[in-house]
Amino acid sequence: MMRNALFGGVNAAVLTPMTADLAPDLDRMAAHCHWLLGNGCDGLGVLGTTGEANSLGISERMAVLEGLVARGVPPARLMPGTGTPALTDSVALTRHAAALGCRGVLMLPPFFYKNPSDDGLFAYFAEVIGRLDSTVALYLYHFPQQSAVPFSHDLIARLLAAFPGVVRGVKDSSGDLANMETMARRFGPAGFEVYAGDDSLLGSVLRAGGAGCITAAANMTSAVNARVYADPEDAAAQTLLASLRKAIAGTALIPGLKALKARHAGDAAWLTLRPPHLPLSAEAASRLFEAFDACGLRLAEAA
Amino acid sequence: MMRNALFGGVNAAVLTPMTADLAPDLDRMAAHCHWLLGNGCDGLGVLGTTGEANSLGISERMAVLEGLVARGVPPARLMPGTGTPALTDSVALTRHAAALGCRGVLMLPPFFYKNPSDDGLFAYFAEVIGRLDSTVALYLYHFPQQSAVPFSHDLIARLLAAFPGVVRGVKDSSGDLANMETMARRFGPAGFEVYAGDDSLLGSVLRAGGAGCITAAANMTSAVNARVYADPEDAAAQTLLASLRKAIAGTALIPGLKALKARHAGDAAWLTLRPPHLPLSAEAASRLFEAFDACGLRLAEAA
Repeated sequence: MMRNALFGGVNAAVLTPMTADLAPDLDRMAAHCHWLLGNGCDGLGVLGTTGEANSLGISERMAVLEGLVARGVPPARLMPGTGTPALTDSVALTRHAAALGCRGVLMLPPFFYKNPSDDGLFAYFAEVIGRLDSTVALYLYHFPQQSAVPFSHDLIARLLAAFPGVVRGVKDSSGDLANMETMARRFGPAGFEVYAGDDSLLGSVLRAGGAGCITAAANMTSAVNARVYADPEDAAAQTLLASLRKAIAGTALIPGLKALKARHAGDAAWLTLRPPHLPLSAEAASRLFEAFDACGLRLAEAA
Repeated sequence: MMRNALFGGVNAAVLTPMTADLAPDLDRMAAHCHWLLGNGCDGLGVLGTTGEANSLGISERMAVLEGLVARGVPPARLMPGTGTPALTDSVALTRHAAALGCRGVLMLPPFFYKNPSDDGLFAYFAEVIGRLDSTVALYLYHFPQQSAVPFSHDLIARLLAAFPGVVRGVKDSSGDLANMETMARRFGPAGFEVYAGDDSLLGSVLRAGGAGCITAAANMTSAVNARVYADPEDAAAQTLLASLRKAIAGTALIPGLKALKARHAGDAAWLTLRPPHLPLSAEAASRLFEAFDACGLRLAEAA
């Protein structure tokens, strides 16, 4: 288990609540961030896949980050997603995050053009890094199921050699534990931080020398994630976490988490999603609630 | 063959030249647009896949369009790509294009989140259309190989029924001729314009009731495309066009087209690409030139 990681521990991939006209709801989001930090989260992976950031415009993404900081969410705890298909937008978002005080950003590869070469991806990240005016850390976002553009280990090795201390780690949402373990063993000794993107793999990734997790289920389960982080050998906590994750993943992940949050907060405004995501049907929601409740988690009162 | 289509005929998927610092090169691009309009193009599909638009930031995309219009490219001939993963950015780009005088835009589906439901995609386009303040036509961009989010015929039927005259056609870059023919036959009678995304299928699509093409090879071959459009039964022209397309598609498409344009214009500045795209190797370029030249096309002098 890596002990000196910049975002070591539990990071929720924070949901983005929306107003009725589909704008980011900053008051509700900041309250949720504060709740997470008070209930097991060490950091907050805002504006990622789970946060519907790819459904938000570039200026909206900046406004969300500014809004959270203005509402007292500590920027040093925030790891915003800043990767877009476009070089210049990715640079603009990263510079903006660094200027607000964020110490790290989570960066998708450019994900429109498929099958880019490793040389092309290296050139892209080199160009991004060359345009930054800060030492903000870049975390690579490996999520082939959504981005369709994976990070090869060869590419990671080249980036680490060329940009030590800048390319600082990876969030692996592939679900492929062997890939996470291999990265932690191969690159961890050079300070490369491996974060599990799947709660059920948190304990295993920590035991392989990983740094923690950045996960969707943690929007609800962060207190359990924290138990696993505190003791990666705590089998009961890891089993509970895996069962919660499985219950949540039984429906569409983002609508399901919003339904759980809405119920927990007693606040139907949390149900709003930006298309192409749609709310769960009543039937799917009640199946989800039943599966989640069967795990027996007692949640701390919502903010 | 559809005779009254808004962009009926030959539309090049226009390349975007870049300056040494990877910014869009508006002077070179406008000159290329004028050359295309003088050499067989009826319209210009700017800021699409071939134009590396997905590698450009939102504000850069707006600046390109403004720059072309300022340089005398008629906005009524322009069909810019305005689809992004983000609802609000897609709306902003579309409103901007309409305000500049464009009569139609080419819209990718939101392409980050994979496997969206047809209900979710319908909700997305309904929301986009509801936010427009004009009657600009939307052309759906079906390109599953790059977007990974196809348009089903059911979805197209629903959009046509709900937004007649607004959802006006499709660019099909799948390479699947049967899909184009089926759409032209099923939706063409309602005024739905089908554009081939592959030059080698232009004649077939026209004969099935399609409206024309929006294609990458046309950056070089537009005069031949125009012969096919003028007479879809001209087998010699279609054979030449298919051989040119095949020669070009033998290497990476965008770098290959830029290499051909650079050679034709005697202007190495055309070789610049924004990562993750990279220039062709010298060897790949000479193989491409040889294959292209073997087709025997005599190009009009470059602008």
